[in-house]
Amino acid sequence: MNKEKIVTLTTWLEEKALTGAIITDFHSIAYLSGFESDPIERVLALVLISGKSPFLFGPALEVNSMKESGWEFQAFGYEDQENPWEKLVAHIKDAISGQSFAIEADNLSISRYHALQAAYPSASFNSDITDQINHLRLIKTPAEIKHMVAAGHDADRAFDIGFRTLAEGISELAVAAKIEYDLKKSGVPAMSFDTLLQFGDHAADPHGATSTRPLQQGDMALFDLGTMTEGYASDATRTVAFGEVSSKAKEIHAVTLEAQLAAQSQAKIGMTASELDKIARDIIIKAGYGDYFVHRLGHGLGSSVHEFPSIMAGNDLMLQEGMVFSIEPGIYIPGVAGVRIEDSGYMSHDGFVSYTHTSKELLRF
Amino acid sequence: MNKEKIVTLTTWLEEKALTGAIITDFHSIAYLSGFESDPIERVLALVLISGKSPFLFGPALEVNSMKESGWEFQAFGYEDQENPWEKLVAHIKDAISGQSFAIEADNLSISRYHALQAAYPSASFNSDITDQINHLRLIKTPAEIKHMVAAGHDADRAFDIGFRTLAEGISELAVAAKIEYDLKKSGVPAMSFDTLLQFGDHAADPHGATSTRPLQQGDMALFDLGTMTEGYASDATRTVAFGEVSSKAKEIHAVTLEAQLAAQSQAKIGMTASELDKIARDIIIKAGYGDYFVHRLGHGLGSSVHEFPSIMAGNDLMLQEGMVFSIEPGIYIPGVAGVRIEDSGYMSHDGFVSYTHTSKELLRF
Repeated sequence: MNKEKIVTLTTWLEEKALTGAIITDFHSIAYLSGFESDPIERVLALVLISGKSPFLFGPALEVNSMKESGWEFQAFGYEDQENPWEKLVAHIKDAISGQSFAIEADNLSISRYHALQAAYPSASFNSDITDQINHLRLIKTPAEIKHMVAAGHDADRAFDIGFRTLAEGISELAVAAKIEYDLKKSGVPAMSFDTLLQFGDHAADPHGATSTRPLQQGDMALFDLGTMTEGYASDATRTVAFGEVSSKAKEIHAVTLEAQLAAQSQAKIGMTASELDKIARDIIIKAGYGDYFVHRLGHGLGSSVHEFPSIMAGNDLMLQEGMVFSIEPGIYIPGVAGVRIEDSGYMSHDGFVSYTHTSKELLRF
Repeated sequence: MNKEKIVTLTTWLEEKALTGAIITDFHSIAYLSGFESDPIERVLALVLISGKSPFLFGPALEVNSMKESGWEFQAFGYEDQENPWEKLVAHIKDAISGQSFAIEADNLSISRYHALQAAYPSASFNSDITDQINHLRLIKTPAEIKHMVAAGHDADRAFDIGFRTLAEGISELAVAAKIEYDLKKSGVPAMSFDTLLQFGDHAADPHGATSTRPLQQGDMALFDLGTMTEGYASDATRTVAFGEVSSKAKEIHAVTLEAQLAAQSQAKIGMTASELDKIARDIIIKAGYGDYFVHRLGHGLGSSVHEFPSIMAGNDLMLQEGMVFSIEPGIYIPGVAGVRIEDSGYMSHDGFVSYTHTSKELLRF
């Protein structure tokens, strides 16, 4: 439980003269309450109330877990056949009589908004607490950074397992499965996303999925992976050679690496996210591959693998000490090859410190 | 691509005199367009337009995949630094001049709704197409049922692998990892959710997560698992004995099995979802365990593992031929044991046909 940050948010509510906040993004809830659960289509909410204690509200079958998670305040449940919003509102009315609430506008759906409004017709739900939560989550504490260092260590282990698994004819899926098996067997509870393996020109599709494609001599092999370790995510990418690869593949690897290293070494506190993106992008544009770098440079991560902010053109957010994000330029040439190189790390006084240490050179297996 | 169902939805738009629909749930998009991708925080939309061709819209880096997915109409992209809603609206304006749209109210967030409205101030987005899509997805075609039979076969293989992996001292995570490894190695692309293993009284937490807890003699072991096979999900649960288990554990297994079999054998076309829930629940209540069955009887599944409808009290939806759902009663006694038994299957003229065939008796390992 992150009591200090709950107090920060409750103070903000009081300053804004809001009655309370209904927080529904399970990542936000995990971050603030310590209770980690994806409720899928059920309702899970953390309710903050000005001047009163907060409470957790969710499926009846999760109430015991809430109480055992270290959450020090009340937890209430609803049965599947009940209207969760009516029940949630009843608990609010027991605690306080005000009627203006903040919600998470990025998370709350139109139908949930209407259901909440129907359950509490006299209240308004027109304030948004998203920015406050994003900014709390943005700057990681030393304890959070320690967890992420551990997650980075597991990602390095994953690369090592994966590289040793490469063999002619093995499928992308089999390599991904071996990585996940060895990690989970050793106690890593979950990957931060489905391990992505792409061989040869399959890697030219920057959002393709791991397939049954077999590895062939001369393929590049792209590994994009991460773990959830101590509740925090790692995320890293390496692209390696299997046998002798084409000169084109070597060239785009070299350009991508130059761009990645430039951004990583030049990232400085006070620089904007947009400026950092430009450092990597200019190198790729200058090499003639600008049209093949089709995504932002990176994204924030923490207790979830994708979170605020985007490291991209147009984002004037300044890099600050304790911010954690990925730096992941890529060049994707359809029918030829795809290369992406990614480290995630945190901003320190001295610059960007990566969580992963696996070599980024063009390793050959 | 599911052209027939797109036509059904476009006809509905015309009947309602709506200009179009902006579909944003990636499960709906996969179902209708054949393009399968979770855009995470990026925008992915399928835009249907009255009297015109539909189009896909999403991240620039996914446009090639859209075109290669079998989608026969246009696909447009946006770059990370662009405003996706403004770009999407520009494509709509190129095609048609009307201004009343349906959205998916369960999926569209408040902030996306506002961003869409800001990008197209003169248009209204106040109709909801969710029910139409849910009802299309509700009744599976023979081809869809064939995929789900294959997914059920993979789930049976998963149980077999898992049962053979049980050994004194092995962790829940190690058993889950072995199941996923063997399946993925053989070409199953993904699990439909993280494989859940719970030993002993850990299984009394019906939404706990797979942990490092070691298996001990006298533990019950709960397996809840499923695969994504040919784009369709399986979902099944078995609870087995490791060594000699307590008479209480045997008793709650017997009651749960009786409830599961009763619901499965008595499910009939024309019965309501609520009535089916009651068949299982009454058996558990009569045995004195009603307070320990804290969730609905089941849920729909198809191209996603949790979808419309809920099989629960209060749902008057009638069971129809081609509906696919789970039947999964459970009894969870904190500190003692937890048992859940689940098959998923489809409604045929003759009743419920399960996709999984692994024995539901109290197997002992």
